[in-house]
Amino acid sequence: MPEEERMQQGDRMDVAFVLYPRMTALDLVGPYEVLGHQPEVTAHFVAASPEPVRTDAGLTIVPTTTFDALDRADVVVVPGGAGWAEVLAEGVVAAWLREVHPTATWTTSVCSGSTLLAQAGILDGRPATTHWALRDELAALGAVVSTERVVVDGSVVTGAGVSAGIDMALTLVGRIWGDERARFTQLVIEYDPDPPYRTGSPERAPAELVAFARGLFAAG
Amino acid sequence: MPEEERMQQGDRMDVAFVLYPRMTALDLVGPYEVLGHQPEVTAHFVAASPEPVRTDAGLTIVPTTTFDALDRADVVVVPGGAGWAEVLAEGVVAAWLREVHPTATWTTSVCSGSTLLAQAGILDGRPATTHWALRDELAALGAVVSTERVVVDGSVVTGAGVSAGIDMALTLVGRIWGDERARFTQLVIEYDPDPPYRTGSPERAPAELVAFARGLFAAG
Repeated sequence: MPEEERMQQGDRMDVAFVLYPRMTALDLVGPYEVLGHQPEVTAHFVAASPEPVRTDAGLTIVPTTTFDALDRADVVVVPGGAGWAEVLAEGVVAAWLREVHPTATWTTSVCSGSTLLAQAGILDGRPATTHWALRDELAALGAVVSTERVVVDGSVVTGAGVSAGIDMALTLVGRIWGDERARFTQLVIEYDPDPPYRTGSPERAPAELVAFARGLFAAG
Repeated sequence: MPEEERMQQGDRMDVAFVLYPRMTALDLVGPYEVLGHQPEVTAHFVAASPEPVRTDAGLTIVPTTTFDALDRADVVVVPGGAGWAEVLAEGVVAAWLREVHPTATWTTSVCSGSTLLAQAGILDGRPATTHWALRDELAALGAVVSTERVVVDGSVVTGAGVSAGIDMALTLVGRIWGDERARFTQLVIEYDPDPPYRTGSPERAPAELVAFARGLFAAG
C-alpha cells in the first residue's frame, strides 16, 4: 500500500474528552493517545468550568472548554473513575451528553463512564460494557450488559475497565479511518502488551481475589 | 491470604512523575494509574517551572513542584515523547536525575524517557529498553539495549514504547509490595488486554509497515 493511501487524510474531526473530578486519568489518556495524534483530530478537553480538574490520584488536567461553550463534537469520550456516582447525582455530564450525542458521529465511554451514557438514555436497550465491578449498576441503568472488552453498537462504543480504553480507541480508529491506520497507530504506541500476571479480568483472576476487590468497590 | 496481609501498608513513598513539553501523556499516565493508588504513595508532578505543561497532542498537566524544589524521591518516572530530543539538548532533566537518582530506591523510564536516564549516566553499560524506533539512539548513549518490554536491572527499570509503561509499573509494584498487591492492581485496572491487531511491535508487524513508521520517526 502506498504511503499516501495509508495516511490519506479525511475530514477534520473534533474529539471531546470529558473531564470531571476524581475521574480515572488512564480511562481518558489511553483513548487520547490513540485518537489525539490522528492528523484530522482537534482534541478538546471539556469540563464544568475552566478550572483545572484533579483526577483520581492527584494528576491535574487543564480544560480547554466547558460544557456550556461546546455544543457539538464528532467524537465524545467519557471516562470513568471514583467520581462517577457524584457526577451521576449532579447530572451535568448526562445533560451535556443529551445535547451533543444526537449530532456526534461516535459517542464512547471507558469503565464507569458508561453509567453517564446510560443516564443520558444513550444505552437504553443497547449492548454495552463497563468496568467488571459495575456490571450490575450498568444493567440497572437500562443497558444490556456485555462482558466483552469493547462493544460497538451503531454509533456507540463502550470499553471495559480503565486500560480497556486503549483497545476501545484502536477499534474506533479502525472504524473511522480503516484498519491500516489503526495497525500503524498500534505499532507507534508499541501496544504489544505483556501483563506480568494473569489477573486482569474477573474471569481469569482467582475468585478470592475478585471477591476481595469487589468488597473494596462496594465500600466506595 | 487474609486481606490484612494483601493490603498491609509499607513505608510511605514519594513518587516523582517528570513532566516536560511534548512528552507523551500515556507514557506517564500508565505508571501513574498503577502506582498512584497504592496507599503508601504520594504522587508529585515535577517540571522545570510551575506553569502547566502541554503534552504531545494538547492534554495539559499542572505540575505540583519543580526540579529546583524537589531534591529527592523514592521512585522517579521519566516519560518519553516527541519533546525528548529538545529536553536532551537542554539537559535540565538529566541534571535533576543526576541529583535524585543516587538516593532514589527506583529510577524508571518509559519509551524515549530512557535517553534522559542515559544522558544522566544512569544507563552506562546497563541493559535497558526503549521505544523500538529509538534502539540505536539509546545504544549510542551508552546503554546495552534490550528488545524486552520491561527490563529490571538493579534499581533501574525501563519500559518499551508508550503503552509499555503499564507493564513496567505493574512489574515495579510486584517488586516493591509483592506479587499479591500487583495481581490486585492488575485486576482493578482490568488489564486483560485484547489488542485488535497484531502489529504492536516491529517483530510482529509487517516489515513494510515498520519501515513506513520508522521513516516518520526519522523525519521527526
